[in-house]
Amino acid sequence: MQGISARATELDRGDPLASFRDRFTLAEGLLYLDGNSLGRLPKETIRRIRQVVEHEWASELVLGWDHWLDTGLRIGDSLAPLIGANPGEVAVCDQTSINLYKLASAAMDATGRPNIVTDAGNFPSDRYVLASVAERSGGELILAPEDGTVSDLAPLINDTTALVSLSHVSYRSGTLADGAAITQLAHDGGAMMLWDLAHSAGSVPVHLSAWDADMAVGCTYKYLNAGPGAPGFLYVRRDLHDTLTQPITGWFGHRDQFGFTASWQPAPDIRRFLVGTPPIVSMVGVEVGVAISAEAGIDEIRRKSIELTSLFIEGVAPLAEHGVEIVTPMEGARRGSHVTLRHADGVQITAALRSAGVIPDFRAPDLIRFGFAPLYTSYQEVARAVGILTELIETGSYRSFDERRGRVT
Amino acid sequence: MQGISARATELDRGDPLASFRDRFTLAEGLLYLDGNSLGRLPKETIRRIRQVVEHEWASELVLGWDHWLDTGLRIGDSLAPLIGANPGEVAVCDQTSINLYKLASAAMDATGRPNIVTDAGNFPSDRYVLASVAERSGGELILAPEDGTVSDLAPLINDTTALVSLSHVSYRSGTLADGAAITQLAHDGGAMMLWDLAHSAGSVPVHLSAWDADMAVGCTYKYLNAGPGAPGFLYVRRDLHDTLTQPITGWFGHRDQFGFTASWQPAPDIRRFLVGTPPIVSMVGVEVGVAISAEAGIDEIRRKSIELTSLFIEGVAPLAEHGVEIVTPMEGARRGSHVTLRHADGVQITAALRSAGVIPDFRAPDLIRFGFAPLYTSYQEVARAVGILTELIETGSYRSFDERRGRVT
Repeated sequence: MQGISARATELDRGDPLASFRDRFTLAEGLLYLDGNSLGRLPKETIRRIRQVVEHEWASELVLGWDHWLDTGLRIGDSLAPLIGANPGEVAVCDQTSINLYKLASAAMDATGRPNIVTDAGNFPSDRYVLASVAERSGGELILAPEDGTVSDLAPLINDTTALVSLSHVSYRSGTLADGAAITQLAHDGGAMMLWDLAHSAGSVPVHLSAWDADMAVGCTYKYLNAGPGAPGFLYVRRDLHDTLTQPITGWFGHRDQFGFTASWQPAPDIRRFLVGTPPIVSMVGVEVGVAISAEAGIDEIRRKSIELTSLFIEGVAPLAEHGVEIVTPMEGARRGSHVTLRHADGVQITAALRSAGVIPDFRAPDLIRFGFAPLYTSYQEVARAVGILTELIETGSYRSFDERRGRVT
Repeated sequence: MQGISARATELDRGDPLASFRDRFTLAEGLLYLDGNSLGRLPKETIRRIRQVVEHEWASELVLGWDHWLDTGLRIGDSLAPLIGANPGEVAVCDQTSINLYKLASAAMDATGRPNIVTDAGNFPSDRYVLASVAERSGGELILAPEDGTVSDLAPLINDTTALVSLSHVSYRSGTLADGAAITQLAHDGGAMMLWDLAHSAGSVPVHLSAWDADMAVGCTYKYLNAGPGAPGFLYVRRDLHDTLTQPITGWFGHRDQFGFTASWQPAPDIRRFLVGTPPIVSMVGVEVGVAISAEAGIDEIRRKSIELTSLFIEGVAPLAEHGVEIVTPMEGARRGSHVTLRHADGVQITAALRSAGVIPDFRAPDLIRFGFAPLYTSYQEVARAVGILTELIETGSYRSFDERRGRVT
């Protein structure tokens, strides 16, 4: 423990991202390791939300739409480099499950095939939405094993497969999928590929263009620090803008939004995947959060993410003798930015940690997730969390806790 | 003019809602008559957004979900009395076009019929979405004439009609539909009825339960003053909660949201129409806006709305000789809270008004809409607007303007 603490001090001292920590408000008394669920509040967001609410809405009123209208596309362009996309290929809009529905439906229509392949460990809302979309096309959702690799997926993809849709980083294990190989596999089978980047955007580099991915969706309130429930984003590769259409044909997707024509005609670009008026106040948080991550640079974020998770894994490894299993891959290149521990007493351990001011989250029945957000998590926080967890488990003092609460990712 | 101005002063003096004007920030130099597009900022919203962003998000972080999670249901219960619904029948969520898609799709599935009936003057995004939903069910969208009455609609409803969906107040003419009679007509034809309350929520009483309406959607950023692009709402009559399901089967609609079960099972209540994580910061504006309207009372709001629009109509009537047509019904009981004027030079007149600080909005090709928001529009503002409009039109001075801008409703 002494060794980790000293090394943490040294790592913090040499951390090129250390100054970003000051961009965020830091909650007194919380050792916050749940940025994989809800990221912290950037100080700049306070200023910008005040500006938009108290000045723009208050004084410009409806005329504010002159500059609000394209907010989702403007932020999309800022986000594009973080996920390896080009300008004009990304839009911030709606919630992740709605975006998934729109794009998965578009894929069914485009391919004319009935089935969708995902894996059993994909986020439940993704599985539910994909199942509904497949069933409405007369097909079904086919499940590969959790954290399915190319060899698990390959036998499931055939000429009935319209779409393969997976999370790039598993919300459970933190396992990072092989984006290039799986996209290639889908394409080899004549299927389209749709990535959910909820746990990767802002934490690991994504290379949508290089992978030749067709579509993607993602979340902004985790590592992009956009605020509770802030709108998600979607990506569609440019050469598909002419052919894919989605079923929720609202006016923001119309070629001539204010022309009020008799019938819907899709915009010739990424706008065709928009639906309605965006929630501007919540969008402000996305704009600021994306800008901070872009400024830090995704490669630098990734480098620190691997160091943070490595330090944590090293620190908790000795707890194996107390029944703590590290579910997340040990190899840095194979994981995202959270580390998941399994323990039969996960409920009580989580409750005990919270009581001690350490905030991870819990996924039933026995998983404790620790998220490390490189923009504001320090190495010393990792060392302290390891110390507190070790103390709780070695002494068994967590056993007096039995609180359990579900958490929003 | 003199007469109107004096009467306006008197009306303001006796206005029981006069004190509500002080609840809103008032933009210096703007005579704002576009609350039918974007309502003003309540001062309380400033305080509440600061609280939620700068204290709850900042300090509680993910633990804030303990009280944020049900925000949409809580606001729905506050909104229910304004639209004649019961607690548990209304939820604030997503955008209006998405809610329309969800509920219209549910109706198609429930009835097994292929067609939808609306009217040609319904808001374009509604027509586009309804057309897409009907086509995906192998049917089509059938259009009654604009502002269709019972006798226009009756011949179009038959055993192929799954759904009748209309706006309660027309975004163009301001005409108020006969909610009870049209709902009855739909039911007589074995169809379901879905009302769009975008221009009625917070401006005219709606009696969803009394009408026996099946479903409704609506908007919060107009007369409910919830802020730019704030989430919409949906209503489903309680006895339909067991049978209707919508296609976007996200985790917020699941019977056991945090159970993470293998397949989606709809919640037994209004939650089944929810999808994903709500944008909390934008929801705050809905919460405050709805509370203010509820406090004022919809009947008092309606009484003043009719007085405001009557005063305006009386004031602009003499402009008929200059080609100004009043499109909105003259009878107070037959209109909502905006008045639409038609003039061949509508573009230039709108631009000239804006240049003079009067903010109406314009709908191509020749409609100028003046919205009167009883919570903050004064009778003297109406009189001043009439004066400025009269001056511009009588002198023809508007002819030097040719600016035209599309506007978000």
